[in-house]
Amino acid sequence: MLYFVNDYSEGAHEKVLRHLIDTNMEQLSGYGTDHYCETAKEKIKKACGCEDAEVYLLTGGTQTNQIVIDTMLAPYEGVVAAHTGHVSTHEAGAIEFTGHKVLELPEKNGKICASDLKELAETFYGDDNHEHMVFPGMVYISHPTEYGTLYSKKELEELSSVCRKYKLPLFLDGARLIYGLVSKETDVTLQDLAELCDVFYIGGTKAGTLCGEAVVFTGNCMPKHFLTRVKQHGALLAKGRLLGVQFDALFTDDLYLEIGKNAIETAAVLKEGLKKKGYQFFIDSPTNQQFVVLENSRMEELKKDVQFGFWEKADDSHTVVRFATSWATRMEDVQKLLSLL
Amino acid sequence: MLYFVNDYSEGAHEKVLRHLIDTNMEQLSGYGTDHYCETAKEKIKKACGCEDAEVYLLTGGTQTNQIVIDTMLAPYEGVVAAHTGHVSTHEAGAIEFTGHKVLELPEKNGKICASDLKELAETFYGDDNHEHMVFPGMVYISHPTEYGTLYSKKELEELSSVCRKYKLPLFLDGARLIYGLVSKETDVTLQDLAELCDVFYIGGTKAGTLCGEAVVFTGNCMPKHFLTRVKQHGALLAKGRLLGVQFDALFTDDLYLEIGKNAIETAAVLKEGLKKKGYQFFIDSPTNQQFVVLENSRMEELKKDVQFGFWEKADDSHTVVRFATSWATRMEDVQKLLSLL
Amino acid sequence: MLYFVNDYSEGAHEKVLRHLIDTNMEQLSGYGTDHYCETAKEKIKKACGCEDAEVYLLTGGTQTNQIVIDTMLAPYEGVVAAHTGHVSTHEAGAIEFTGHKVLELPEKNGKICASDLKELAETFYGDDNHEHMVFPGMVYISHPTEYGTLYSKKELEELSSVCRKYKLPLFLDGARLIYGLVSKETDVTLQDLAELCDVFYIGGTKAGTLCGEAVVFTGNCMPKHFLTRVKQHGALLAKGRLLGVQFDALFTDDLYLEIGKNAIETAAVLKEGLKKKGYQFFIDSPTNQQFVVLENSRMEELKKDVQFGFWEKADDSHTVVRFATSWATRMEDVQKLLSLL
Amino acid sequence: MLYFVNDYSEGAHEKVLRHLIDTNMEQLSGYGTDHYCETAKEKIKKACGCEDAEVYLLTGGTQTNQIVIDTMLAPYEGVVAAHTGHVSTHEAGAIEFTGHKVLELPEKNGKICASDLKELAETFYGDDNHEHMVFPGMVYISHPTEYGTLYSKKELEELSSVCRKYKLPLFLDGARLIYGLVSKETDVTLQDLAELCDVFYIGGTKAGTLCGEAVVFTGNCMPKHFLTRVKQHGALLAKGRLLGVQFDALFTDDLYLEIGKNAIETAAVLKEGLKKKGYQFFIDSPTNQQFVVLENSRMEELKKDVQFGFWEKADDSHTVVRFATSWATRMEDVQKLLSLL
Repeated sequence: MLYFVNDYSEGAHEKVLRHLIDTNMEQLSGYGTDHYCETAKEKIKKACGCEDAEVYLLTGGTQTNQIVIDTMLAPYEGVVAAHTGHVSTHEAGAIEFTGHKVLELPEKNGKICASDLKELAETFYGDDNHEHMVFPGMVYISHPTEYGTLYSKKELEELSSVCRKYKLPLFLDGARLIYGLVSKETDVTLQDLAELCDVFYIGGTKAGTLCGEAVVFTGNCMPKHFLTRVKQHGALLAKGRLLGVQFDALFTDDLYLEIGKNAIETAAVLKEGLKKKGYQFFIDSPTNQQFVVLENSRMEELKKDVQFGFWEKADDSHTVVRFATSWATRMEDVQKLLSLL
Repeated sequence: MLYFVNDYSEGAHEKVLRHLIDTNMEQLSGYGTDHYCETAKEKIKKACGCEDAEVYLLTGGTQTNQIVIDTMLAPYEGVVAAHTGHVSTHEAGAIEFTGHKVLELPEKNGKICASDLKELAETFYGDDNHEHMVFPGMVYISHPTEYGTLYSKKELEELSSVCRKYKLPLFLDGARLIYGLVSKETDVTLQDLAELCDVFYIGGTKAGTLCGEAVVFTGNCMPKHFLTRVKQHGALLAKGRLLGVQFDALFTDDLYLEIGKNAIETAAVLKEGLKKKGYQFFIDSPTNQQFVVLENSRMEELKKDVQFGFWEKADDSHTVVRFATSWATRMEDVQKLLSLL
Repeated sequence: MLYFVNDYSEGAHEKVLRHLIDTNMEQLSGYGTDHYCETAKEKIKKACGCEDAEVYLLTGGTQTNQIVIDTMLAPYEGVVAAHTGHVSTHEAGAIEFTGHKVLELPEKNGKICASDLKELAETFYGDDNHEHMVFPGMVYISHPTEYGTLYSKKELEELSSVCRKYKLPLFLDGARLIYGLVSKETDVTLQDLAELCDVFYIGGTKAGTLCGEAVVFTGNCMPKHFLTRVKQHGALLAKGRLLGVQFDALFTDDLYLEIGKNAIETAAVLKEGLKKKGYQFFIDSPTNQQFVVLENSRMEELKKDVQFGFWEKADDSHTVVRFATSWATRMEDVQKLLSLL
Repeated sequence: MLYFVNDYSEGAHEKVLRHLIDTNMEQLSGYGTDHYCETAKEKIKKACGCEDAEVYLLTGGTQTNQIVIDTMLAPYEGVVAAHTGHVSTHEAGAIEFTGHKVLELPEKNGKICASDLKELAETFYGDDNHEHMVFPGMVYISHPTEYGTLYSKKELEELSSVCRKYKLPLFLDGARLIYGLVSKETDVTLQDLAELCDVFYIGGTKAGTLCGEAVVFTGNCMPKHFLTRVKQHGALLAKGRLLGVQFDALFTDDLYLEIGKNAIETAAVLKEGLKKKGYQFFIDSPTNQQFVVLENSRMEELKKDVQFGFWEKADDSHTVVRFATSWATRMEDVQKLLSLL
């Protein structure tokens, strides 16, 4: 059986695992106060080119979205997001659970645009009754998006500019950030993100760690008593080392770039192969997720040998499926997959 | 430097780590649906002698307390707990964060008793205005308690009996359960807990895993759509295998008992040694946490060589300190500690 | 100055006020347990032709929406509503404040339709990942809608049928219900609502009381310990009589129908007059709210003599405005308004 | 039947009712923006001797406690209160419903003291692990307390001083404030409260209005976008006039003092009469609530002719009962009650 079902099918990248093994019996202080957490944070700040950032390590993606959004919003504020955004649809109401509305914007290829955001803010503040409504309080984008697409630097600059005009912190969900940073079709660097976003996270779970997401707060915007709020959300690990050691490995000798490259290279071969075979793409993705329209009987056939994701019905006889590559994908498996298609 | 500061200073027990290494590149389905989660759950049910139990693996202790309590209570109910209970004092308001009050009972040695619980229930239902008050909805106890003490089987039976009379699910926080089960001074088995409690958890974080707590719901009381609620709390791991593999190891060849025994044996030697040297105990603990009253200057001296926990001020010149042993404590370090005292 | 700005500009209908005066010094028990609350409830049940309904009196509309939705939903559920629904947009996030998502449906003239609802439910349950999403838990409609429009009996039957298929309680917001019931263009009676809805409320605030909304739960669906939950939401009045006495008056000698008729008759004259004068209607409303497109300079002129509502910008030179009539509107004021237009 | 069961058995004081009648058909703007709300607020500020205060009118007591506490606390903070405080016990968990813990202090006669508060704050900040705990965020006291007792000016000054040292806003629940202000045994004025408290409310419901509590924020501490948060809590009345008109009446020609005096004078005669007859008082109350210990058979006898409150069991044969007077209590009824005792 070939696995292209997602980018979190294996455990940890061997170098990450090795670091866990090597440090295992070291006696360390709890709750993220150990020196591996410290060095991991320093390495991340350096990679971001942002020495005055504050970094906090959390365990999973939905948890991170929930905590960042809940702690940065005032109680009367909601978060603006694409209606396809992960926080809008696939987090079981984790944002609303903490009392906040997701204010949905239309999307194109999973992305929102500056002009729609500007209109939302203008309409809101132009409404005499806006005090009876949920205030827009921050903006959530994912990069890569849920459809594998990427914002250009210009698009991010425009969004950031509207955000700053209306004092809306810009939050970038980077669960798969590494696969965006090494894409051949991006002009966005980690340093750009540190400049344009107020807060973003670098995903570990989908990029070679067993778990863990590194939240980067730029410009002194980490919420007050953040540790207490993390604990209150049930998200403070006693053995914070589990996160510190893994991110320490990820940001040593540019391992995160290495991890990203394998996913992108295997995805590129897959995309090229699919194109050659004449498959129709649901969306043009420059990252590790490829969305293809399959004829249903073809899809059923393929299921015998390959695990992949069912995205949505295309029409009565076709389905959109997703093939995902990762740090762990072997080129030979891509070739096998292509031979089956 | 000697470490007796807590029972989560090291990473994972070597057999747990070994299992993570051995299974690392296996491609598994996400969100706790993999076969290691499955076998771990089966092994736990067997150890509990309760085939019809349902087991769910979560990441940390506060998270587990929050999710179990929030999902089992009706919105108009609160949880009854000792005023020294972890949920009452040391979880940053994680229970209240989900909308529920902690209804505090007096404690003795960290334990509540059946008669106080009965009185609380009787007073509540006897009050004509009880509909204007928070309904008692479940009972929380920790075993071992925050003071290392243990409930006897008789005490648990009495509590359970009152709970059943008033339809209050009994929830046992077993963050350190393993150290209670192997104590020389207990008559309580895992099977007893499965019979007397409606829900309890077997702690991993403080007993040899990197993270993880196994919640056991007996008698068909797992809340509906529990996975969705776990996700809503931000607590669903994409790589559920991280928990499954570790608990699979913990419940293979009775590793959890082996882990418990080392902690108890080293604690017993420490306790005996402290007694011989004439130290005064703050509380008589039969488990891996020992609470001793130290003269302040003595304590300052000791801090140069040993890390330990500061519990509370005893009087102006004395402090209660905690020495904790664990699966990882070496007997030679206990001897070194004793030689320093 | 003429007032057509809303339907809650005056205090109480004189018969409602008279009942408050007459009963003022009577000594009554608190929290809604007095005999006026009792008789009001009985009269409402009788008017609904539903003796086994349960009625509960609350103070305001947003409060009622929040409490009904929060107490009837399970924590993992959201409420389905039109994206123009009051709960979606104009309640400052009161639904999300209690932890629930509003699942928005497209609307036509402020109404949702059975086929869109069916599609939402089918798509949800057809999605293999639906356990990672918010469950649809109930359906909210307003009648009249925020645009003054009405559901036909057939439309309600279709919605109700889909709701029952998917076990989704149907909740009807009747803040202006009386103005719908007496509309010349409706075939829906109070008895129909009691049959087709699981819960609905009969608005008082916009129909002649100082405050108050009467929630009708049919088919035994009032949430358990509802009084406690009302109190927990901060909504339990010590002097429940304030609500009981007013609704007792409203449902004595069909006062509520009398109140409705005045609003509808004055609105009909206004609508007819506006039509004759060639004004363009934004929407065709058969109730007490009339939405008209005014040229901006015309609108500015009118503001000197009349208070009315600004709904939304139509284009750069035109605005949609709202004229509302009520139980208190005098026909002579309608004539004056028409003479100014 | 004589009514001494509480202080909210009647409707409104005749002057309050008269003002509602006189203003009933005036067409006013909604949501508390009308001129009666405005003048009521001005009169209250003047009575408090605090021109820069901000006043907000809400509907009921639990609602007011919930909204003030929730909006003034940071999410990681709890409210300190006596364990007998209304927010601790008799509000169905309304505080916890909004995510905040009530941090209980011991009480004496329903009151907390500055030294206990200071110890709580010192212990909290002295604990190295305080970031794992709920931060004390404000202090709640009731005046008169739930037992009818009063703080002296000195006691309030001491509490206020500790509060200011630890930056804890002091919030005074004045549901029965008027009955405290006119007590013969108080040295506390409304102006004192405005100086010593950061926020307090002047109760209307128990002092002659149909509903309504006037919250006074001193020193510029009204939370941002307070109207939006009130709406979000479901507490914004469309007809805000209902509150404005009533408080306008209450603060015209010192009606609130007149109302207070009747309650205090009747209570004084009752207290004196009870003393003479040798009844034992549960607590020495200088306000309108008198708590007396009755022999159970005596109590049963009395129930035939009088409604009164059952407070708590004193011993197996005695019960603590409460007799409450109010603005509406007639001296002749007090005499009748005494003749029955």
